[in-house]
Amino acid sequence: MATQGQVITCKAAVAYEPNKPLVIEDVQVAPPQAGEVRIKVLFTALCHTDAYTWSGKDPEGLFPCILGHEAAGIVESVGEGVTEVQPGDHVIPCYQAECRECKFCKSGKTNLCGKVRTATGAGVMMNDRKSRFSINGKLIYHFMGTSTFSQYTVVHDVSVAKIDPQAPLDKVCLLGCGVPTGLGAVWNTAKVEPGSIVAIFGLGTVGLAVAEGAKSAGASRIIGIDIDSKKFDVAKNFGVTEFVNPKDYDKPIQQVLVDLTDGGVDYSFECIGNVSVMRAALECCHKGWGTSVIVGVAASGQEISTRPFQLVTGRVWKGTAFGGFKSRSQVPWLVDKYMKKEIKIDEYVTHNLTVGEINKAFDLMHEGGCLRCVLKMHE
Amino acid sequence: MATQGQVITCKAAVAYEPNKPLVIEDVQVAPPQAGEVRIKVLFTALCHTDAYTWSGKDPEGLFPCILGHEAAGIVESVGEGVTEVQPGDHVIPCYQAECRECKFCKSGKTNLCGKVRTATGAGVMMNDRKSRFSINGKLIYHFMGTSTFSQYTVVHDVSVAKIDPQAPLDKVCLLGCGVPTGLGAVWNTAKVEPGSIVAIFGLGTVGLAVAEGAKSAGASRIIGIDIDSKKFDVAKNFGVTEFVNPKDYDKPIQQVLVDLTDGGVDYSFECIGNVSVMRAALECCHKGWGTSVIVGVAASGQEISTRPFQLVTGRVWKGTAFGGFKSRSQVPWLVDKYMKKEIKIDEYVTHNLTVGEINKAFDLMHEGGCLRCVLKMHE
Ligand SMILES: NC(=O)c1ccc[n+]([C@@H]2O[C@H](COP(=O)([O-])OP(=O)(O)OC[C@H]3O[C@@H](n4cnc5c(N)ncnc54)[C@H](O)[C@@H]3O)[C@@H](O)[C@H]2O)c1
Ligand SMILES: NC(=O)c1ccc[n+]([C@@H]2O[C@H](COP(=O)([O-])OP(=O)(O)OC[C@H]3O[C@@H](n4cnc5c(N)ncnc54)[C@H](O)[C@@H]3O)[C@@H](O)[C@H]2O)c1
Ligand SMILES: [Zn+2]
Ligand SMILES: [Zn+2]
Ligand SMILES: [Zn+2]
Ligand SMILES: [Zn+2]
Repeated sequence: MATQGQVITCKAAVAYEPNKPLVIEDVQVAPPQAGEVRIKVLFTALCHTDAYTWSGKDPEGLFPCILGHEAAGIVESVGEGVTEVQPGDHVIPCYQAECRECKFCKSGKTNLCGKVRTATGAGVMMNDRKSRFSINGKLIYHFMGTSTFSQYTVVHDVSVAKIDPQAPLDKVCLLGCGVPTGLGAVWNTAKVEPGSIVAIFGLGTVGLAVAEGAKSAGASRIIGIDIDSKKFDVAKNFGVTEFVNPKDYDKPIQQVLVDLTDGGVDYSFECIGNVSVMRAALECCHKGWGTSVIVGVAASGQEISTRPFQLVTGRVWKGTAFGGFKSRSQVPWLVDKYMKKEIKIDEYVTHNLTVGEINKAFDLMHEGGCLRCVLKMHE
Repeated sequence: MATQGQVITCKAAVAYEPNKPLVIEDVQVAPPQAGEVRIKVLFTALCHTDAYTWSGKDPEGLFPCILGHEAAGIVESVGEGVTEVQPGDHVIPCYQAECRECKFCKSGKTNLCGKVRTATGAGVMMNDRKSRFSINGKLIYHFMGTSTFSQYTVVHDVSVAKIDPQAPLDKVCLLGCGVPTGLGAVWNTAKVEPGSIVAIFGLGTVGLAVAEGAKSAGASRIIGIDIDSKKFDVAKNFGVTEFVNPKDYDKPIQQVLVDLTDGGVDYSFECIGNVSVMRAALECCHKGWGTSVIVGVAASGQEISTRPFQLVTGRVWKGTAFGGFKSRSQVPWLVDKYMKKEIKIDEYVTHNLTVGEINKAFDLMHEGGCLRCVLKMHE
């Protein structure tokens, strides 16, 4: 490649300050160092974690930075020692790394690899604890180890999933976050069995992916709960069988669900990020075995609570990150499932824009009709 | 039997009012009705739930009542339709029933039978929603469906475990509550695997039974945490390998444990009933997989809380009631394990008194040296 070993100057959407519109800038992207991969990002979607950090509510948010973590692209060049991908490979950058060597990866119990976490949390790369992004010499922080709101990005090799080159990148970019999170919450974290009654709080992309996962797991009833009744029509296509709008009831929503299900649901999923709904999701579970999975990300500092009696009488409270999927191993498998039409992706893409329209894309996120907006990163 | 079908007048310790000394009275115990069993109680131990209801802090506590739920005895007579036990059988009354017919029993997922719960919660028997205890015509409430602080008690047939007649009743009475709760928390609820690091908060009978269960499950480190260092000597005999007294540290106990274990424990058990300790027990768990089991019973109205991030990053919060054991099926199995010397019981019995000394027995509960005090119910 002509660009290999060179600094690449390209367009990126830079977040200079919380809540201020992103600015499309010419950024310099340094070549990948040892154990790093430079990716030409072709498509990126927006997710709530981007909006959350951008809003300034994330106390660990660093500015200026380049946000973005749900994307797909092609490897442009690799640093020293990188063996598992090479230039030209189609890839999905993964905010959840998988090194296969750390205590977490070797435990067989979790997908939360610890290898590069201290660096990605600090907005830098492991090798020299510096950023690969700059504008005229001024460093711009990385975000979640992915920073996909740039035409080129540099990520750790343990954070790159190599996928089928036939897969349409404008679709499978969604496998970088929201869709796997929902599917995995059902398949890996809750392990829903056939015949189960499932409640899903929040019918955005994550909640709909939970519905799809629950349907494929053979759930007998899939109850969707949302304060926006407009969500119900589309949710039917993802497997939701019943709808509840909390605004239609005077009693607490957990009670509504317990009454609807003769004692409570077998599994519930909170896909909003609201701590009171997390409590309701636990408390609508059936005594003796009901399991509630927290998927939504609450604002920093907020706490969940309940009476311990809820747990002593057999309910289980869990959570999930990236649906428990091991990123490098399982994202390619999810791509294959999509190619075999075993999981949906196209149906989540409600909007397509270009990187230059990214602020508009953020506005769309707050509209009920938007699930995922995919940005084309190059003309 | 000469007493069959007759009212029996016998001694019982009656709780007339919260916090007032129990009074040894002559009570009338009516014959068992359909589906009921009258038991001659030979030995009973005291447990914290008795003390809790007696204290008046239990909003569902009913007075006057006959407390007691950790006992062993012999069937005196049975009511109509009772087929699984007969007069002369050695039995342990179980506050957790097992009907084998209800939704809970048939689920295969829980030991929380629902059959007689509304009656036992209301201090009466299912058949006529009345008590079998009275003093000169004035009704005395049942407690937990067991009321073992009486020389004779009447229980539902689904609450009676028939055991090996060779088993010493002054010992196996402990299998009515505390010891199975601890063992089962490890074996049934947490399912601790060999090599695990376990933390136990509170080294009373329940915590020590957790230690014994963890040792038999092959745990590699069993860390006992108690604010009373006197507990540490005896705890060694139950398998505890390390001791931590929170009073010896300035930092939060969860941090002490995370530091001691390179990231946190695999399993933790709260065996106190303190909601702040419940939080610490969750938060000392290892990211990615640590599971915390609430065993202690908190005072009514108190709530547990934590940041949802604790669960999203892989910790699991559970609880247990009677250790998840199915009472009628598994208490006899525990008796057999004791007879084969596979589980301890004798070591938990630190005091032996008679029913007339029951108030002294309650005083002993608050002394560090007392694990279980067993009362002889007949001269
Ligand atoms: N755990 C993880 O790894 C992970 C990964 C991705 C996303 N997330 C989180 O999942 C959550 C959902 O993401 P999304 O993209 O689907 O979001 P979204 O905003 O598209 O969907 C949320 C839905 O919840 C509904 N809602 C809001 N308040 C409600 C209430 N009180 N009761 C019922 N419904 C309510 C909204 O109407 C909306 O339909 C976010 O918090 C996101 O940060 C977590
Ligand atoms: N879930 C169930 O089915 C079930 C069954 C039986 C008992 N229990 C409950 O289990 C709990 C324990 O019962 P037990 O008989 O072993 O009680 P216990 O009083 O004998 O033991 C409690 C221990 O905790 C220690 N302790 C108190 N505060 C502490 C703190 N802040 N930090 C560390 N240690 C502390 C005490 O020194 C004591 O050694 C009680 O709450 C009881 O009600 C629950
Ligand atoms: Zn995301
Ligand atoms: Zn790893
Ligand atoms: Zn008890
Ligand atoms: Zn039952």
